[in-house]
Amino acid sequence: METAPRFTDIVEAATRLSPVVHRTPVVRARSLDAQAGAAVFLKCENLQRAGAFKIRGAYNKLATLGAEARAQGVIAYSSGNHAQGVALAAQIFGVPATICVPETIIPSKRAATEAYGARIVLAGTTSEHREQRARELAAEHGLALVPPYDDPAIIAGQGTVAMELLTEIADLDVLVAPIGGGGLMAGCAIAARALAPRIRLVGIEAEDANDTYLSMQSGVRTRIPPPHTIADGMRAIEPGELTFPILREHLDSIVLVRDSEIVAAVRFLLERLKLLVEPTGAVGVAALLAGRIPDVEGKRVGVVLSGGNVDPALLAQILLSA
Amino acid sequence: METAPRFTDIVEAATRLSPVVHRTPVVRARSLDAQAGAAVFLKCENLQRAGAFKIRGAYNKLATLGAEARAQGVIAYSSGNHAQGVALAAQIFGVPATICVPETIIPSKRAATEAYGARIVLAGTTSEHREQRARELAAEHGLALVPPYDDPAIIAGQGTVAMELLTEIADLDVLVAPIGGGGLMAGCAIAARALAPRIRLVGIEAEDANDTYLSMQSGVRTRIPPPHTIADGMRAIEPGELTFPILREHLDSIVLVRDSEIVAAVRFLLERLKLLVEPTGAVGVAALLAGRIPDVEGKRVGVVLSGGNVDPALLAQILLSA
Repeated sequence: METAPRFTDIVEAATRLSPVVHRTPVVRARSLDAQAGAAVFLKCENLQRAGAFKIRGAYNKLATLGAEARAQGVIAYSSGNHAQGVALAAQIFGVPATICVPETIIPSKRAATEAYGARIVLAGTTSEHREQRARELAAEHGLALVPPYDDPAIIAGQGTVAMELLTEIADLDVLVAPIGGGGLMAGCAIAARALAPRIRLVGIEAEDANDTYLSMQSGVRTRIPPPHTIADGMRAIEPGELTFPILREHLDSIVLVRDSEIVAAVRFLLERLKLLVEPTGAVGVAALLAGRIPDVEGKRVGVVLSGGNVDPALLAQILLSA
Repeated sequence: METAPRFTDIVEAATRLSPVVHRTPVVRARSLDAQAGAAVFLKCENLQRAGAFKIRGAYNKLATLGAEARAQGVIAYSSGNHAQGVALAAQIFGVPATICVPETIIPSKRAATEAYGARIVLAGTTSEHREQRARELAAEHGLALVPPYDDPAIIAGQGTVAMELLTEIADLDVLVAPIGGGGLMAGCAIAARALAPRIRLVGIEAEDANDTYLSMQSGVRTRIPPPHTIADGMRAIEPGELTFPILREHLDSIVLVRDSEIVAAVRFLLERLKLLVEPTGAVGVAALLAGRIPDVEGKRVGVVLSGGNVDPALLAQILLSA
């Protein structure tokens, strides 16, 4: 089995990524501070290229593969932001990308992925279908597989988010990030433990996407039924083989939020802060606004807004739902 | 009559404002560059406190009034962002604010203004009604009037937008900003002429809010019928007495955009760049995307996104309009 990346891998990833990704801004707002009762620093990965942090891991993975391994092209399976991240990374390297997506993919997500030049392969409706199809195609055509999270180079790439935040903002007491498959949180945890060893690390899951929460309680990776949360980047049913031990070692707690709280946070971020953040990306703010993270009063809290890709029809529905 | 501010007034305003306002981020996006055919730098005043650049001028005005003059409180007339800017500035100084607004004010704008502690006075439906009522109340109660744009301290405050942008981003060829009453563009023009004398200055108006465009053509301030554009911050019917000569001296051109182009720009900024920008704030991007600004190919273009306060119902309508 592959081993967890070290902090030096994240530093190397940051060097590779710096000419390619945005160093996204850190935004503050007094209205948020007032409602959270804390000094909140928002790391705006929703303003990242392709609309989410995913380009970091994808580009780092392609870079570390080397020219020969990626020459035939790369392949990934995803229903969301990882698809666009891999498609963009492949475009930058000038190699073909194939993405296995569910037959039910939202047209706007398909169009965004195709806009980066990727070939779309429709593959069933579950993530198992997609992964299986991707592995078959990889073997058949000699394509390099770019996994969504369970890979050291992916995790190291995602860790550059926390590295940027912690080198820009001093003395954070708490770092909050969403947990889907755990790649972002795992990378951020490794960076944070190196740069700010005493920082409190809080991962957020949607209430019915609590696979990591349950796994942390039991101490073993626990599988859940497919979640239905509005946070569509959190529909993993089991923590990663590689990410889970990292989270278990470093995380201080996992907090669950309700879909209604996520919707309220998306609205708050849009209407008050003028930032479009997708439901998955808004869970940290949801947890703060709902008072679900204990002991943040007066603390300095960094929150990763992980992405901003929302279907316009869903967004309109959220706006009209008040 | 009062005289135009000088660049040193803007520098002084910047010093006053620095502990109070956000130094808003400058955002780039390859998708925008590709569609505009230029390197575009977006100055995100939509991420400013109270959601627009207006706090800059309002705070600078209150600061330069002095403690005695503002002790009884301040008064303003506005249907939009100036109301919130003055309300917030007064809250910071701890003095009461009264804002004369139209009877037809959108509830979300009223609520935002009241949230900063201001007293709302409903005054007719036209800007003349509001201004007259504000002048009466100012005289009756000894309140200091904070005009929306035709004031040297207001103009100097707004000029700090361009000062921040031009000191952060070197070698801009073009600077683009919306023109409502002209306070923002006038202040930015003065700052730009000092910091980057050869920069091309382009003001944008909505097609049916072309009072400054017509005035520039005729050389005298020209009044138009009340505009109906979706860009509700551009509904001034005549350029300012103080702002117009500044614009006439410094601007290279004024470009008009259609409402359909403004709506497309709001959608583009939201869906692609994840930034909520109100119609008035999006006119610069609208002009770029519609190819209405001549000779920007390969140029470095700074664009002021002036505000982000959009009624949620209107935004939902825009999202569903595609």
